[in-house]
Amino acid sequence: MTQTIAIDNSQKLQLAPLDIPNRLLLGPGPSNAHPAVLEAMNTPPVGHLDPAFLGLMDEIQSLLRYTWQTQNQLTIAVSGTGTAAMEATIANSVEPGDVVLIGVAGYFGNRLVDMAGRYGADVRTITKPWGQVFSLSELRTALETHRPAILALVHAETSTGARQPIDGVGDLCREFGCLLLLDTVTSLGGVPIFLDTWGVDLAYSCSQKGLGCPPGASPFTMSQRAVEKLQQRKTKVANWYLDMNLLGKYWGSDRIYHHTAPINLYYALREALRLLAQEGIENSWQRHQKNVEYLWAGLEDIGLKLHVQQEFRLPTLTTVCIPDGVDGKAIAKILLNDYNIEVGGGLGELAGKVWRVGLMGFNSRTESVDRLLEVLPQVLSK
Amino acid sequence: MTQTIAIDNSQKLQLAPLDIPNRLLLGPGPSNAHPAVLEAMNTPPVGHLDPAFLGLMDEIQSLLRYTWQTQNQLTIAVSGTGTAAMEATIANSVEPGDVVLIGVAGYFGNRLVDMAGRYGADVRTITKPWGQVFSLSELRTALETHRPAILALVHAETSTGARQPIDGVGDLCREFGCLLLLDTVTSLGGVPIFLDTWGVDLAYSCSQKGLGCPPGASPFTMSQRAVEKLQQRKTKVANWYLDMNLLGKYWGSDRIYHHTAPINLYYALREALRLLAQEGIENSWQRHQKNVEYLWAGLEDIGLKLHVQQEFRLPTLTTVCIPDGVDGKAIAKILLNDYNIEVGGGLGELAGKVWRVGLMGFNSRTESVDRLLEVLPQVLSK
Repeated sequence: MTQTIAIDNSQKLQLAPLDIPNRLLLGPGPSNAHPAVLEAMNTPPVGHLDPAFLGLMDEIQSLLRYTWQTQNQLTIAVSGTGTAAMEATIANSVEPGDVVLIGVAGYFGNRLVDMAGRYGADVRTITKPWGQVFSLSELRTALETHRPAILALVHAETSTGARQPIDGVGDLCREFGCLLLLDTVTSLGGVPIFLDTWGVDLAYSCSQKGLGCPPGASPFTMSQRAVEKLQQRKTKVANWYLDMNLLGKYWGSDRIYHHTAPINLYYALREALRLLAQEGIENSWQRHQKNVEYLWAGLEDIGLKLHVQQEFRLPTLTTVCIPDGVDGKAIAKILLNDYNIEVGGGLGELAGKVWRVGLMGFNSRTESVDRLLEVLPQVLSK
Repeated sequence: MTQTIAIDNSQKLQLAPLDIPNRLLLGPGPSNAHPAVLEAMNTPPVGHLDPAFLGLMDEIQSLLRYTWQTQNQLTIAVSGTGTAAMEATIANSVEPGDVVLIGVAGYFGNRLVDMAGRYGADVRTITKPWGQVFSLSELRTALETHRPAILALVHAETSTGARQPIDGVGDLCREFGCLLLLDTVTSLGGVPIFLDTWGVDLAYSCSQKGLGCPPGASPFTMSQRAVEKLQQRKTKVANWYLDMNLLGKYWGSDRIYHHTAPINLYYALREALRLLAQEGIENSWQRHQKNVEYLWAGLEDIGLKLHVQQEFRLPTLTTVCIPDGVDGKAIAKILLNDYNIEVGGGLGELAGKVWRVGLMGFNSRTESVDRLLEVLPQVLSK
């Protein structure tokens, strides 16, 4: 081999093998992966068109349908993190000029606004203070005003800990002839979801919260109504990687190569979904609810207030008000560095005002709550 | 918890734990991951803003620069597979109406055409039969004719096994005032690359070929010239997940949250890059060249012909002509099912005409070659 150019070694770091602390992840995500899921992920990769892998893809599809309570044929995992799955719903459903109405009561509502704008949507918003939710009558009024092609709501607002009620929204959307798009990133696996009963047309989630799996392969689903809108597009989907016309031919019976899937993450996701089905989705929901109520009681016992009205609190993520005079960031830093416990800080309207405490998937256990409640009073009293 | 809707268990599969065959992956990718890389990947995840993780991101950036032989500040891993990194180069560099000239001599040139069109490019192409490459004078003529804003070439065409010479192309692009975009998916780590010396402005790759890492976190880099084009855009990048204005603030010193990174894949990538630096990039290139020449000699010994002229053959991927009268698909199926060896089939112009044999990353070893050469004559003579 001829090689006449000298090698530049200026960026050639000499590193030791990986040495990462073992954290209890009680922030807004990722949460700790189930040990069996990590073990499954470690299986040596096979090819993305290997019959063994194609069978595993089918299993993931079925179990995602079960977990979301949907029969949508086009239910897959996108090869990216939750944000990629979010973008997949927007990219495939929005055509330039479409009116998209977005409920914004937190950070992820705003992200949907930014994203839909990039795909040419005529974006309209309804807003609420962060931590509150929209009523059916508020949604009706907004639909009457804006007559959108798509209504986008966040079921579980990760930035506020609020749960948006969805029952009845699908009927409203049918009355006004629009699609219903739902962010279920912080609800899938841990919060009751009935996509088909609710009439949801597009939904997305992530793997690293309620499913107890490392991040990187993210649930996506679309109803037949949404598929029809996709089929009637006048323009190509403005995103090649996330185009469901192409992805549907890889996940469907055609098996046409699209991209090299993150094989090992699909191993992990399949194991996480298998464990969830073994537990039973309704039992997982109950577990999350029971453990979060235990957390709430414990936090109130030590004098802390919760940001969201009880009726609308998520079982997966709790926003805890930082008491007056307390430096929230400093407390979180001590928890991380001295106790290996991660909790999240506030974003946007809630920056500096709340901690975000997640109990999701494998981490929704009394042991997680006990460990936090044992440490927190000591740290706060320092 | 009130729950009045009945659970639908029709998609609730009862599955056994994962049972995946152990394959020797000698196709076009993924290739087998290095065992130490799989082990690193299995480290429990931490948060995407954890100081331990941010330090690891810095290490990945340096080692990617070393591997690509570039000093580009904006050198990161995109949270998706190689196709996502490809799309990141297009999405960030193309504005609607930009003339983009693409060299098409295989499947991935065509993919660039489709992708660039979706971002509003005025796409022009130069073409060659699959397996051939463009000469400098052909590129000069095309640049004179089309006067593009961007010239996009595929360094290592995974569908043909041809290596496009790049020396001198960067100077041409400067003469004509355009950016040079390069696909290095099947070359990074295994084929000599000197991005800065060559004057490449945008490049992308994958983790699962020359780097010997599972797929899902993919190298991306852009030069200062390309960053300036990005900064002068009149329109937002039409892709939120891959917007380098936002990603640069997460990978740079601002550390502003963008998305939840696929943490464990970054563990794996860091280990893969660490091992590569330990070996020395120039030694890895030599290893790939030595092993592929051993493969070529062995294939010719058993009477097989190679599709690409020797001068332009890739050390990472070899296209082997299927002899007349032989059912290439049937042979590949026997290799997979009876011997656990994966080789790839042909795509597009080469469908049914070649097998694609990869020797990449950890798999570029004499043992891999010996195993294939031991089995292949038996299978062919059946």
